Amino acid sequence: MTPPSFTSGELADRFGLELRGDAGLRIDGVATLARAEAGQLAFLANSRYRAQLADSRASLVVLRADDAGDATGTLLVAKDPYTAFAKMAALFEQKPVREPGVHPSAVVDPSARIAPGAHVGPFVVVGARSIVGEGSVIGPGSVIGDDCVIGEGCELVARVTLVTRVRLGQRVLIHPGAVIGADGFGLAMDSGHWIKVPQLGGVVVGDDCEIGANTTIDRGALDDTVLEEDVRLDNQIQIGHNVRIGAHTAMAGCSAAAGSARIGRYCLIGGAAGVLGHLEICDRVVVTAMSLVTSSITEPGEYSSGTPLTDNRTWRKNAARFKQLDALARRVLAADKET
Amino acid sequence: MTPPSFTSGELADRFGLELRGDAGLRIDGVATLARAEAGQLAFLANSRYRAQLADSRASLVVLRADDAGDATGTLLVAKDPYTAFAKMAALFEQKPVREPGVHPSAVVDPSARIAPGAHVGPFVVVGARSIVGEGSVIGPGSVIGDDCVIGEGCELVARVTLVTRVRLGQRVLIHPGAVIGADGFGLAMDSGHWIKVPQLGGVVVGDDCEIGANTTIDRGALDDTVLEEDVRLDNQIQIGHNVRIGAHTAMAGCSAAAGSARIGRYCLIGGAAGVLGHLEICDRVVVTAMSLVTSSITEPGEYSSGTPLTDNRTWRKNAARFKQLDALARRVLAADKET
Amino acid sequence: MTPPSFTSGELADRFGLELRGDAGLRIDGVATLARAEAGQLAFLANSRYRAQLADSRASLVVLRADDAGDATGTLLVAKDPYTAFAKMAALFEQKPVREPGVHPSAVVDPSARIAPGAHVGPFVVVGARSIVGEGSVIGPGSVIGDDCVIGEGCELVARVTLVTRVRLGQRVLIHPGAVIGADGFGLAMDSGHWIKVPQLGGVVVGDDCEIGANTTIDRGALDDTVLEEDVRLDNQIQIGHNVRIGAHTAMAGCSAAAGSARIGRYCLIGGAAGVLGHLEICDRVVVTAMSLVTSSITEPGEYSSGTPLTDNRTWRKNAARFKQLDALARRVLAADKET
Repeated sequence: MTPPSFTSGELADRFGLELRGDAGLRIDGVATLARAEAGQLAFLANSRYRAQLADSRASLVVLRADDAGDATGTLLVAKDPYTAFAKMAALFEQKPVREPGVHPSAVVDPSARIAPGAHVGPFVVVGARSIVGEGSVIGPGSVIGDDCVIGEGCELVARVTLVTRVRLGQRVLIHPGAVIGADGFGLAMDSGHWIKVPQLGGVVVGDDCEIGANTTIDRGALDDTVLEEDVRLDNQIQIGHNVRIGAHTAMAGCSAAAGSARIGRYCLIGGAAGVLGHLEICDRVVVTAMSLVTSSITEPGEYSSGTPLTDNRTWRKNAARFKQLDALARRVLAADKET
Repeated sequence: MTPPSFTSGELADRFGLELRGDAGLRIDGVATLARAEAGQLAFLANSRYRAQLADSRASLVVLRADDAGDATGTLLVAKDPYTAFAKMAALFEQKPVREPGVHPSAVVDPSARIAPGAHVGPFVVVGARSIVGEGSVIGPGSVIGDDCVIGEGCELVARVTLVTRVRLGQRVLIHPGAVIGADGFGLAMDSGHWIKVPQLGGVVVGDDCEIGANTTIDRGALDDTVLEEDVRLDNQIQIGHNVRIGAHTAMAGCSAAAGSARIGRYCLIGGAAGVLGHLEICDRVVVTAMSLVTSSITEPGEYSSGTPLTDNRTWRKNAARFKQLDALARRVLAADKET
Repeated sequence: MTPPSFTSGELADRFGLELRGDAGLRIDGVATLARAEAGQLAFLANSRYRAQLADSRASLVVLRADDAGDATGTLLVAKDPYTAFAKMAALFEQKPVREPGVHPSAVVDPSARIAPGAHVGPFVVVGARSIVGEGSVIGPGSVIGDDCVIGEGCELVARVTLVTRVRLGQRVLIHPGAVIGADGFGLAMDSGHWIKVPQLGGVVVGDDCEIGANTTIDRGALDDTVLEEDVRLDNQIQIGHNVRIGAHTAMAGCSAAAGSARIGRYCLIGGAAGVLGHLEICDRVVVTAMSLVTSSITEPGEYSSGTPLTDNRTWRKNAARFKQLDALARRVLAADKET
């Protein structure tokens, strides 16, 4: 592969950005402002780091007009420099080409259908009646169970499991270790012993979703578990059966949504945050890290729970008082009445 | 496979339920009340949803006698409709048949013993001296290390790892990505550098246990880590070395028990809840989601920690006051003394 | 393999410990004080368990001089008995020998380099330009992507994924299901749709690091994600892109560090604790279980957040008051001023 290379003028034209300076600079890579070398493109998205501009050796910097004042080098001015940078950086990403075809070691059920332009890697298993769409890549060690559908242009990086009845849209990206479509956690007590509630639903994943490493999404009990389009899940997330996540919602690492929760569109769920089962969260809700959503949220906005971190000694004293909080409050309120 | 089909009368007889209405209705599937079509069985377990009864197109509904009053269709009356439904739904689950035998790609140590009726799938590895019992299914990509015993009727769905010295009882179900028997996290500091404490124990998993996707259960340091019979673990759970979990206890997703914790029988541990190491929790304890158990629990009942979710602005103000809680309490108590 | 066996005198000599009693006792295993049988070595590290000494059937006990007073059996006296025990126990660990060589089923890119003394197990994939160092073991089902370097004496137990640009030092131990070098969670919003920020960095893991089962470490966006030497990560941990973890730091199960966090040397991060992104934690910080670090920590010491566990009824009352905490505090402060 020839390493990618563009001139500053080509980048400006391609992404409709204003160029200030030399249109003929050759750019062959991207870096942070602090680490960039000559020939590299960097970005300044947060004005807090503006001081780095003077010392940066980057040949080209994409930034907001507001931040361009003092800069002396060649600049690309963008309304949203981070987004512009993301698009330009993609030009420099050298992804391995996965040739179409099924690796000889793969075990594909005779009733499965693999599109001619799909890549099925080593040690992959594809179950009965499953379909792999055109241009999709099924990375090594992945297991596709029965009755799954993988749309076009999807990538299962490696060691991904789709257990059964999982339907992916187009361009879905799934990272290693993710398990989609395992049994939901449905139990009923019968004379002192658990019995399993069959999990007869599936999982539907919309176009352009991304699912992180070791994330798990259970299939529905009767209806499906659903991710609408462009949902972005980080690593180690747990999605219970029959959850529905609205389009363009992003969840950070280690967060979880319990069974039948409904999360709206354009929500941001912080790391290790939790959503209890059967709740509903409306569109455009932000939940901060490690918060627990225990009742439905009907107004957009930012929500939190938890207590602030302090040194352990201070914390112990305050935490002990938490146990007395109701009693303390009663005293305060009673005292108020007296006065 | 012929799709399963039963009459309403057959279902009533088979599960000892009272039938109200037509015994000859043909039922060929199950669904939620809201989505059921003609020919399907639905359930009403929570009276809150009783209003759905009138609109449901389900041919047959299983419910409690209390909820049967207004219903006009054919009914099955059960003391515990959810459990009855679970049992009936199992009739309609069409599980793929895994033929007995060892897939030619599997790598089985000569000293391992595979029962003739067991199924060992593609890309499975079975280590030295390990045993796979009659009727057990070892799904694709699973790795069974040395000195493991898998009882009869177990299922390792796919990509399950039993590292070493893991002994499963009968009918144990393990979902993809689970890792049982990895090294416990045992470290000792030696002149500023960690040294590893050898993890010489194993893991014992009782009959009828279920272990969720990407759940991890470490093997013991000297003695074993133990799950008694009918323990049910959801996804992404972490069980440290030498933990013991009592029979019929269920743990929800992302919960964790640190090393040497002992959890009693019939406990319910909520999602993302944690149990510190070396603690003891008695039987029939419920821990709510995201609570942290920091000392032993000796009385059955429900336990919680954490703070309620509010909008972030309110939360910030209250959380800041948490840092002053002890000081505030002292003032309140002092003021009380003065009056 | 002949089971290992040593005399009490040999153990004392080998590890420089003071022997009190019979130098000729034959020791062929290790156990807890409570469960040890004749012929076994046990340890007493915590004086709380000193009472077990009298009843123990262990032939040999390693303990501190302070605890040796009442003991009647043969003793090894150590300044740090747990560390001494860890070293001695390692003598009794019988690890399976992995023969050098590449399993015939493994798929190794022609441009990869496998050292002659390395072991590459069944169903392993090694990508382009990757290197496996002398004496390293790549367990079954592992996937090594492109441009990875595995140093000497490393062990990837089984089903480990190194996605791309992962560089391991010497003697790195990685447990099953771990995913190192997956895409960091980098997103930019573009006209209401997420676009992916390319993750062009890698992961650098120092010598003697240990990475737990199902732990995930994302690769950097532009620079690398870094674990310095002797970092010890338990299971189910999530490390975001561009995090840096200092040497000798240990993180317990289910903890997480978000993107670009910097954790110092000799830190101890408790189970399920979280560190927000772009923070800095100095050396020798202890964060207790399930605490959330929301701002940088500049002083060594122990830090905590959260509230204590109580029965649910008490908790409900106190938690409800947390919502009024600021209002209550204002009343208290106002009342104070009045008096």
